[in-house]
Amino acid sequence: MLGRMKRVDHQRSPCPIGRGVDTIGEWWSLLIIREAMLGVERFSQFERRLGISKNALTARLGKLVERGILAKEADGRYRLTEAGEDLFAVMTALRQWGDKWLFGPDHRPLAMRTRGGGKVAPVIVTDGEGHPVTMRDIALGEP
Amino acid sequence: MLGRMKRVDHQRSPCPIGRGVDTIGEWWSLLIIREAMLGVERFSQFERRLGISKNALTARLGKLVERGILAKEADGRYRLTEAGEDLFAVMTALRQWGDKWLFGPDHRPLAMRTRGGGKVAPVIVTDGEGHPVTMRDIALGEP
Repeated sequence: MLGRMKRVDHQRSPCPIGRGVDTIGEWWSLLIIREAMLGVERFSQFERRLGISKNALTARLGKLVERGILAKEADGRYRLTEAGEDLFAVMTALRQWGDKWLFGPDHRPLAMRTRGGGKVAPVIVTDGEGHPVTMRDIALGEP
Repeated sequence: MLGRMKRVDHQRSPCPIGRGVDTIGEWWSLLIIREAMLGVERFSQFERRLGISKNALTARLGKLVERGILAKEADGRYRLTEAGEDLFAVMTALRQWGDKWLFGPDHRPLAMRTRGGGKVAPVIVTDGEGHPVTMRDIALGEP
């Protein structure tokens, strides 16, 4: 896993991406979060839907609880915390990127719609006035 | 690494998040992409800034080139492809989430500003009319 090869403790990183990486832990965790966002709550559901071993799932659920992304209820269900739910923009941006770049021309993505039937717009980065911002427009500096 | 424990081939997953996970590979790859977005191009720069071993860095850069996220130029520099640059929304959403949830009350995030000095707005998910959409508003279905 990541821990075996890292020489830098990203949890104390000044970079929020570094900390985010360390907090969500590794990719299984993102898939667990994806399932939780789709309403999966029970250990056996996660296990079946992800094809992950019991041991690996136990470890990852435990880490997500410890880091405050999931909460384990008294009845054994796992629910996203407020911080977990707030990963929705990250997950949606990743979903849209995957749909755009990782499938062939015949790909028909699973449509993401609002309950009212409306479309979900592509997630973009904007400035304070709503104008699109790309990587090339950015400078990082002190607050 | 991920490959040791996975029983599902996410690269053929119908889910774009699953494929995205498999394509970017693991968290070191996201940190490499972060550095590339900040202008890092040379092997030695990545190595120094990430505190990653030469072997691990070689493997990850190679995978990112193979998957079409980075291109290796004739002069040895690594540059983001169009698909790589398009990860900007994912990376920005992750950066903002980390800034919000993973630091203490005294945290002053590295400010992300446009070259013109404007602020970058929080990345949100919206519907076709620009109204915010949360996890609870979403239904997944056929296209």
